[in-house]
Formats: sequence, C-alpha cells, structure tokens
Amino acid sequence: MDSVFQNYFYPKSICVVGASSKPQSLGYELTKSLKQYGYTGELFLINPKADEILGFKCYPTIESIKDKIDLAIIMVPKQFVEESIKQLTSKGTRAIILITAGFKETGKEGGEEEKRILELVKTAGASLVGPNCMGIINSYPEVKMNATFVAEEPQNGRMAFCSQSGAIGAAVLNSLRETDIRFSQFISVGNKADVTENDLLEFWEKDENVSVITYYLESFEAGEKFLKYFIDGKVSKPVIILKGGRTSSGIKAASSHTGALGSSDKVVDAVLKQFGIIRADDLNDMFITAKGFEDFPMPEGNRIAVVTNAGGPAILTVDTLEKNNLVLSELSDETKSKLRKIVHPQGSVNNPVDLLPGGTAEQFKQVNEILVADKNVETVISVFVEPIMVPALPVIEGINEIKSDKPIFQVVMPLPEFWEQYRKESKTKCSLFRRPEDPAVVIGNMLKFKNKPSNKNRLQLKEEDIGGIRFEKGKFLSQEEVIKISKHYKLPIVETQLFKYDELKTAGLEYPIVVKAVGEKIIHKSELKGVVLNIKDKNELIKVADEMIKNFKQKNITLDSFLIQPYIQTKFELLVGGFRDPSFGPMIMFGTGGKYVEYVEDTVIRSAYLNDFNVDEIINKAKIGKIIQGVRGEDPADMIKIKNTIKSVAQMMLNHKEITECDLNPLVVTDDNNIFAVDIRIKC
Amino acid sequence: MDSVFQNYFYPKSICVVGASSKPQSLGYELTKSLKQYGYTGELFLINPKADEILGFKCYPTIESIKDKIDLAIIMVPKQFVEESIKQLTSKGTRAIILITAGFKETGKEGGEEEKRILELVKTAGASLVGPNCMGIINSYPEVKMNATFVAEEPQNGRMAFCSQSGAIGAAVLNSLRETDIRFSQFISVGNKADVTENDLLEFWEKDENVSVITYYLESFEAGEKFLKYFIDGKVSKPVIILKGGRTSSGIKAASSHTGALGSSDKVVDAVLKQFGIIRADDLNDMFITAKGFEDFPMPEGNRIAVVTNAGGPAILTVDTLEKNNLVLSELSDETKSKLRKIVHPQGSVNNPVDLLPGGTAEQFKQVNEILVADKNVETVISVFVEPIMVPALPVIEGINEIKSDKPIFQVVMPLPEFWEQYRKESKTKCSLFRRPEDPAVVIGNMLKFKNKPSNKNRLQLKEEDIGGIRFEKGKFLSQEEVIKISKHYKLPIVETQLFKYDELKTAGLEYPIVVKAVGEKIIHKSELKGVVLNIKDKNELIKVADEMIKNFKQKNITLDSFLIQPYIQTKFELLVGGFRDPSFGPMIMFGTGGKYVEYVEDTVIRSAYLNDFNVDEIINKAKIGKIIQGVRGEDPADMIKIKNTIKSVAQMMLNHKEITECDLNPLVVTDDNNIFAVDIRIKC
Repeated sequence: MDSVFQNYFYPKSICVVGASSKPQSLGYELTKSLKQYGYTGELFLINPKADEILGFKCYPTIESIKDKIDLAIIMVPKQFVEESIKQLTSKGTRAIILITAGFKETGKEGGEEEKRILELVKTAGASLVGPNCMGIINSYPEVKMNATFVAEEPQNGRMAFCSQSGAIGAAVLNSLRETDIRFSQFISVGNKADVTENDLLEFWEKDENVSVITYYLESFEAGEKFLKYFIDGKVSKPVIILKGGRTSSGIKAASSHTGALGSSDKVVDAVLKQFGIIRADDLNDMFITAKGFEDFPMPEGNRIAVVTNAGGPAILTVDTLEKNNLVLSELSDETKSKLRKIVHPQGSVNNPVDLLPGGTAEQFKQVNEILVADKNVETVISVFVEPIMVPALPVIEGINEIKSDKPIFQVVMPLPEFWEQYRKESKTKCSLFRRPEDPAVVIGNMLKFKNKPSNKNRLQLKEEDIGGIRFEKGKFLSQEEVIKISKHYKLPIVETQLFKYDELKTAGLEYPIVVKAVGEKIIHKSELKGVVLNIKDKNELIKVADEMIKNFKQKNITLDSFLIQPYIQTKFELLVGGFRDPSFGPMIMFGTGGKYVEYVEDTVIRSAYLNDFNVDEIINKAKIGKIIQGVRGEDPADMIKIKNTIKSVAQMMLNHKEITECDLNPLVVTDDNNIFAVDIRIKC
Repeated sequence: MDSVFQNYFYPKSICVVGASSKPQSLGYELTKSLKQYGYTGELFLINPKADEILGFKCYPTIESIKDKIDLAIIMVPKQFVEESIKQLTSKGTRAIILITAGFKETGKEGGEEEKRILELVKTAGASLVGPNCMGIINSYPEVKMNATFVAEEPQNGRMAFCSQSGAIGAAVLNSLRETDIRFSQFISVGNKADVTENDLLEFWEKDENVSVITYYLESFEAGEKFLKYFIDGKVSKPVIILKGGRTSSGIKAASSHTGALGSSDKVVDAVLKQFGIIRADDLNDMFITAKGFEDFPMPEGNRIAVVTNAGGPAILTVDTLEKNNLVLSELSDETKSKLRKIVHPQGSVNNPVDLLPGGTAEQFKQVNEILVADKNVETVISVFVEPIMVPALPVIEGINEIKSDKPIFQVVMPLPEFWEQYRKESKTKCSLFRRPEDPAVVIGNMLKFKNKPSNKNRLQLKEEDIGGIRFEKGKFLSQEEVIKISKHYKLPIVETQLFKYDELKTAGLEYPIVVKAVGEKIIHKSELKGVVLNIKDKNELIKVADEMIKNFKQKNITLDSFLIQPYIQTKFELLVGGFRDPSFGPMIMFGTGGKYVEYVEDTVIRSAYLNDFNVDEIINKAKIGKIIQGVRGEDPADMIKIKNTIKSVAQMMLNHKEITECDLNPLVVTDDNNIFAVDIRIKC
C-alpha cells in the first residue's frame, strides 16, 4: 500500500484528465490551483481541444504521454471515466483520484457503476480515491501540490486531514486565511470506493511529515479494522475525528449522502474513547486540538494556572476546566510571594492570577515565567483582552518567547487589526486561541492522548469448538444451548433445571424456588406472566404450573417445559450484554439491569476487545457500578466474579460471529454479595 | 427608577469627572469614544489642569458647571470619589457611573468603602452604576453615546447587553467589526453596589428601542426578585443570559472576582428553564440568539427544512437539530415535485435538499421559496459553502430578498473576502451565521421563548400559622413537630406512633411493622443501624428494641424513643425535597429516592414557585417519574397524590422561610400504587 500512497502524496508527475480552459470550470480551477501553489513536479493536462492551458502543454489523449504518470486526477464526464482508467492503468499509473460524481451517492444504479469501476481498478493492480471527491494537497515544500478547486495557498504544517465530505474540505480551505489552520496533507476521499480512512491511517502513521491525523467522517468503512490498528499498537500519532451523523436524523442524512450504513453514535463514542482516539465536537475543536499537538509541548498533567488581565473571560476559561478533567493548580507560597511583587495590589495572586486591565507586556511575561516555574503548575492559560492602554502584540510575543517545556496557551480577544499584524510580525507564529473556552478543550484532548488506555492484554478472538449448538441466523439459542454455552464460558448461571409438567410432581427440589415458562416464542417472560418468584412448596409449584399452562394456551403460545431455579434474594440487578455493530463488530454492555433498563439509562458500552483497564473503567462509569463496590459503609459485591462475567461475555462475542445479541438481565447481586445470572438470552 | 434610567441611557448632558489629556489613560480614551461616536448632548469635562481636551472645554470643578448634569461618569482616583459624589448630588445629578475600581472586589476593606459610598448616594436620592465598571453605550441615533474606553462605533440595533464583567464588555466591543453584533444599549455594571440586573430588566422591558435583553452575569444579586418579574408576568421580551461561574472552580473564581455568593449551576439552570429565560453556553450562542430575535420572524414550530450545496456541513446542521428539540420536516409531494424541476438529478429533493456544488443563486432562491411555501416547513436553514464557480453574494442576497413570514437562516462558509463585501454591498444586512451548528441553537432558543411555560396559577407565599413548632436555626424539627407540620400540609405521612421503651410491651400493634430509633443525634438512621423492617410479632419487636438500645449506648448516642410504622411493601422509592438557595430562595426536588440517592443522580430541581405545568414537567423529566406513570403494561402510581405532595412541600418551603432543607426520602410507592412518606426530615 505504501508505495501507492507515496504516489498520491509525493507524485513526481500528475496527469489531469479533463483539464479545461474555461475559467470557473472544475478542470480549469484545479489546474490553476496546481499552478498557483507552485507544484514542483511534471504536469500533464489532457484536453483534445486545447494546445495549452495556463501555460501548460495539453495532450489530446493519455496514450500520447510518453512519460511515467505517478498520479492521475480524473474529472471527465461519467461516460468517459472507464476509458480513462483503462488507458491510465495500461500505462502503469497506480494512483488515481476520481473527482467525477454520480456514483453510489445517487442510488443503486450509480452504486453498480461504482462497483464496475472499482473492479477495473483493482484488476489492474491500481488504487482509487473517490469517486465524488475534491482532490488532494501536500504542502511539503518539495512537493507543493494543491490539486483541489480552491486556489488557496495552505501554509505548511504537520497536520494531515482526510475529509469524507468535499464540501467540508472546501469550507476549511476557504477559511484558511482566517483560521490559520496549517496542513501537511489534505485528501478528500468522497465515496471511499477503494481508499478509506484505514489506508490513510496506515500511511500517515509512517509519513514523517505528519504528526497529527485528523478526519471528518460520515461513516467508518470497516470500523473493526480501524480499531485493530490501535488494538495491535500500530498507531503512535494522535488521531482526531469529527463524526458527522450523530443523531438519528443526522445518521439518516449521512447515510443518504454517502450510501453507507451508520453505527449509532453511542457506539462511535464508546470505541473512540476506549482506544484513545480523540473525538472533536465541531470543526473548531478539531483544528484547535490539532494546533495544540503541533505547536505546544505535551502537558505533564492536568493542573492548570490561569493568568489574565480580564476577570470575566478568565472565569469562562475556568468554567471549562472541569468538563475537560482539568483543575486549577494550588500555587506555591513561593510563587505567590514572587507574584505579589508584580501584580497590582488590587489584582489577585491566587489562581486565576489577575493583572487587571493595566497589566503590561512585561508583567504578563514575568507572571507567565513564574507560573511555569511552579512545580504545582503543569500548563498555563494566559487570557488577554486588549485594553486601550496595552497593545496586544508585545504581550503575545513576549509570552511566545518564554522557553519552557510546559505549554502556555494564549487566548487573545483583540481589535480585529491584531490578527493581520500577528500574521505579519510574529516571529514564532505560535497558534493563538480566540475563545476563552478553547484552551481547556485542547489541553483536555492532549491529555486524553497522553493518558490513553494501554492496549496490553486485550481479549482477542480464540477459536472455540462447542459441540451441539446450532447458531441459526435470526433465532434465539434454546434453553439447553444457553446452559451449555454458559457453562463453557463460565457464566455464573444460577443452578437451573428443566422439567416437563409431568416430571414436576416427582422432582426433588429445595424450596423456595423460581419457575419460568420455557418455549421458543416465550422471550419476554415477565411480560407474558411466565415468571413466578419465591414459590415455597410443591403445592404452590403445581398450582403455578397449572396457571401458566392455562395462560399460555389462551395466548396460543406453546409452553415446552418449566425452568426451575433456586429463589435468590436480590440486592441489585445488573445487566451484562453484548451486541454486534455493523461496522465496529462485537460490543459489550454493562449497567443497571432489571425490567426498567431502558428507562434507567445506566448502560455503558465498549468494544469487546477489552482489557482489564477497560473493565474497571466501564464498571466505574456505570452508576450501579459505583454502588455495588460498596457505598455508605456496605460491603462490596463479588467484583472479581462480575469482572470475569463481563470478560467472558466479551470473549463469547469475539469468538462467535454468529451471535448478534446476548443479555444477562438481570445479573443478580444477592444479599450476601454473590453473583448469579438468572436469565440469559442469546440471539443469532 | 424609570426616570433615573432615562438619565443613564438618554442623557441630555454628561459630566466626565476625571477627563484626561493623556492618550491611553482611561479619562482620555472615554472622552475620545464620546467624541468619535458623536454624542448628541452636552459634554462637561472636569479637569483642573487643562483648558480643553479633544476640543471640549474643561471645568476645574463640578461646582463650576452651571448647567444641569443628567449623567456623571466618575473616573478619579479612589480618594476623590466621595467628594465628587457629594458635589454631583448637591447639584441634583441622580445618575452616576463610578468607573474607579478598588472596592468590594479587593476584599473586606474595599467592601466597607463601597458601602459608605452607596450610603452617600442613596441618602442623596441618587443612583449608582458600578463601581469597577467600564461604562455605557446607547447607539440610538438621537443619543449616540459611547462612554466606554473602546472607541469602536457600534451599529444601532435592538439588543440591550448588560455585562457584570468589564472585560467581557471590552472583548465584545473589540470584536464588533468581525462579529457584526449590533447594540441598542450596553452597560457594564461592575460590582453592582446599587444598580443590578433587576433594575435593567425593569427598564429595558419598557424601553421601546430594546427588543432583546442579554446579560453576562457572574452572580444574581437578588435572584428571587429577578424571578418575581417573570412570575408576576412583567417581562414580555426575550431574555438571554450567559452565566460565568458554572463549575465549582468557576463559581469560586467568580465569587473572588465579584465578592458575591454563588448559586449552584444546577439551580441557575433549573430556574432559568422554569421561567422561560434563555441560557446561552458561550458568547457566540448569546449573540447569535439575539440576532435571531432581532432579524428574523418567530418560527411557527420546530419543523425544519435544510437546503444546501454542501452535504457535509448540512449533516453537521442536521446533527444539531435534535439537541435543540427540532426535527426535519417531511416535505410534501407537491414540494418534491416542484424541487425536482430545479435540483440536479444527482442532488436530493429530500430534506436536506442538496443542490450539489454547482447550485446557482437562482436555484438557491427558488428552492428556498418552494420550501417556505410548504405547510410542513416552519423554518428553513440554507447552508452555502462557496465553491469556485458560484460567488457567494448573489446567493445570499437572493435569499435575503425572499418575503415570507417564515424565517430563513443562512450559514455561509465563504472565502474571507466575502464578509467585507457583504457589509458594504448587502441591502438587507440580514444576520448570517458562520458555523453549520449555529442556526439550530438560534431556532431552539427562539422556540424556548415562544413556548415558554405559562406563569398562571403559580404557588405563592401564604401566611400560615402552625402553633407549637419551634423553627430553630441549624436544628432539625423534632419527630412530633414533623408529624404536626406534615399533617398541616397534608403530606402523605405513614401512620406513625412514638413509644418509650417501657410502653412497647403493652402497645397494641398490627404487624408487620417497622421500628426506627429516635433521638436528636440520630439523623442518618440506616447507617446507624437505627431501622429494622418487617418485624412480625411482639417478641421480635422487643428483641430488636433491646439490640438498638445496646447499640446506641455503645455509640454514646441518646436514644429517646421508638418510632413505629406499619411495614409497607415498597415498589418504588421516590424523593421529594426542598432547600433554600442563597439567591433564588425556596427550591424543590423530585426524583429517585432511597439510600443511593446521590449515586443514582436522578433528581430534578425547580423553584418552589410552581404551577401544574412545572409539576408535570419535573415528573416527566425524572427517570423514575416516567416509570411510575406505568411502563411495560403496569398500572400507574397514584399520580395525583404525588403531585399534591410535591406542591405541598413547595408551599411549605414558600411559607416558612426558616426551613432551609426538607426531605421526604423515601416517598414510597407501594405494590398497590399507594403513596406514603415513611421518613420526613425538616431542617431550619
């Protein structure tokens, strides 16, 4: 794969198939962008009607080019696409960007056409970006390629950006001169017929010019594979994702936009968190976080000092700390006494340090130096509102000059002129932030990356042969099969016996017991009145059994047998379950169980590729997880048994792809803190 | 109060006490702002050392001015403040803005000085804004007053903005030329020694030049009074609040910044919601919402059509609908067939409507016209990313020209040049939005205002005389007092009898019962093992009582008596409680009860000034509230009794200011859906 991506991002020659001499056409504007930005390689334009466009020679056909073509960009109308690809691949071109739209995104017919084109490409051993995309950028000085329709000239940076949406790409490029976003590389992947976020993750991880990887995605093409890069420890760089299609309407809109199947947002959220992938809430959050990684040293920890000339904005900053798991540092006495010599007596030497509106560039610099020297401070946020008597630039530049291995994030709220002045006159051009809320988001995200959960000792798929179980698509396992698989995976299933009606009378049972009706159609036992608790003797048992038979006969549901379990005194009801996500594969759930589970909404989900760290985390994240560990002086439940149960269910979900859902609900914590699964359902 | 505020905002003459000839000093810059913006009234500058400043004559003293002074702005050093105020008030000036800092915000001593100055002002029948503030603006063409240090020239609008923080005010003024925020009036209220948000609410409600009221606040000076304006139906205009000091660190920072006592953020959130006051999350949200009210017709409802040339950004828009209680409209067949004639066949005529990047100004206008004509559409969001082939301005202006009583909100993601061009060339200058997420926030907030809960039939304080109860600060009511007050307010207290140990043996009781230890120090009964449930007969009772006596003797806690209640089969445990907020007064809580209440975190709070609408709302908002209304085919609990209990506790909190906390926990729902309070605690 590598060499192909070398061709995409570092091509020595580009062929533009469908270059045009008509301004404002895509074929013209993309050529103009390439010229204006100063592409350093060879450029071949294909246009049978023109001799030259923008000073570049035009070729009538692809075949008429003698030289090697590293990268081809196709913008011809749909009916000419196949022929172009054939000519390119026969010349040995392996990297193809298909900008032309009208494929999968338009419906079934377009989807078929896309498949045909993909087959053509793959048969020829080539690779395809798109279709329905808007191009590629590499700002590396030795390449200088802007092969998009937006003729901006991106500043070189170390952030790579992959956008599933061309329009998001265009909007970001449009904004570059205002937002000061810097790219290393940009690619619009459109319909992702061939090249996906997964391939780019692999390439960018290795590309030395890239230090942060960002994505705007509307779907994960093969989410389980995406996670596997992290599970296998193959990703060392920070990855930031903005996911469009979070809500049900959004997912629907995204899926009609891209034709891809959507994962629920809870799943996306869970897996990103679990594997230390940073999730951005909007474009601003994504790019300020990328700037954080690019321009600032990694914070040692979450203890923050704030310095300001502006009380109100600093309070807005402080308000955002908690949500991002940050705290205000307790400044040392030494720091405070040093600050007292600088800070106005009516200001504050406590954190947030307040210099008052008169705070000068010199004072700001000194205070920042004192704060980064305090061992209780791991990061500084300096918030400056430009007052009339203190111009902004010397304040900002003074702080930029401080040498420290602790980061100082600056918020500036100046008159509009400042920004242009900063772009022209700043020596460091270090990223600044515009909103008092921004730095906490950045620091929080950087620490999420720094402290990301270890990937050690994750559960992995193991081949397990359990005889005698039929995994039949769409069906539930029978009660016998459930008992068999539960025993295999050591699930803490309560002692369970099955009896036919006639056997009940002679069965030797220890009371009190629970009786449950068993039958293929009897799924929601409680609602069907198929469960009776706390039966005290045989007489009661027979009476209950008779009633159940009558009841199910009336409902026309076949009752096969009676499931008998000891009656367990319930202290808490937990839920442990699993399901299979269409993109991310096997998932696990833990939380409050019982019959009100969807109303209580206390369920934490994670990928089934768990390790012990994840198991602890999901237990601590669920409200019931805190309670069962012993609060208000109570003894904890058997936590080892609970953790093992979660891991066993996860292992079962990993091993048996046929299982789509399973539920241990309730998983009971008894009065003496023992754990029993009293109802296990497994669906294929 | 009115006439004083007329003097603040519409002064015919202003006296600047402390005007200076030194550029970059506050006294100079404020004078410059007044001059530059073109204040239409008389300006008197006080400076004993200068003859004129910026072309205005200077007076050596206040006394030397013969004319009437409507508004005085004091900027002299602290030691001259008292004298200035004396001279001003003796000349009959009633509106005074004290910009000088160094008062309450610096600590106790400053607080005393502030009190002294306030007394001076009040004794003279005058009014004071500040101290520690940054001035006032009225952009009304007949006033044109910018009496701040920021010499920007705000465009005239209909939004009034009060900032407790001068720096937030300055930051907003600094940004005006970029954000296109328009003011009617702006005031920085600083320490709020006299004039508070309450006074401004009253004034702006009446001022015809104001149609939206916005606040940046770090504390509510008298929150209960603020709410009373709403409770009494005295506020008809939309009010939007950004509250600094949300988190515990933020509240601490705000309180050291302002010297004011903070309410918890949950309380602030609850009361704002309850009275239809809009809460903004940040400055952007506040001002875009204000623009919404100012520039757009009120949406009829929450059904939204989105049109775009840009799939990705439109998905980000759609994703924000749900959180703001908005939905995508189902477009009518007629609409779709009309759209089909305009929209590119590879685009989409479903909602979101996609014109593809080639969508022209004409197409955008036609599609928007078709969408506003659809009866299923109540608001349109038009999202435009500027592509190379379609310049932005004609698209935007074309849509601005559409006449409709339904609002069309436009998001534009253009090249940077666009904004200046729009400012210069747009005829309507209608507000545009920069982020795809913005319009949903605006529409959601506008609908919150439109659909704000009625203030009809709210509970009000009633004088109630309940003999025999000692409300002693810091103490709990005794068990007998609790029974008395509970009966008075018809709380559903379970039948409760108190017995001394000796009386137990002869008491005629119906078993099963519950026994609880009673004593002044026995508050958390369960944790102290002072509760035993389900006692079946007298023998067991005596045994339990003996054990309790022994247990409490060991702990050195006095056990006075035994509380006996019938043992009730509990289906659900609820919590109904009340507390008193330092600013907003009596508050009420409802949610899941029981001993894990702080872990379950299912508590909804509201001001005790409830009406039936609020009661329904808090029940529906709590998870347990949904469950007890009957889910999964179950019968509902006695909801009338629950509602009455909530209202009774609220009424009790309103009537008895001495009560600081009360708890009905648990309020039990029995197996047969009856309601009993089994433990009531009331603290003063």
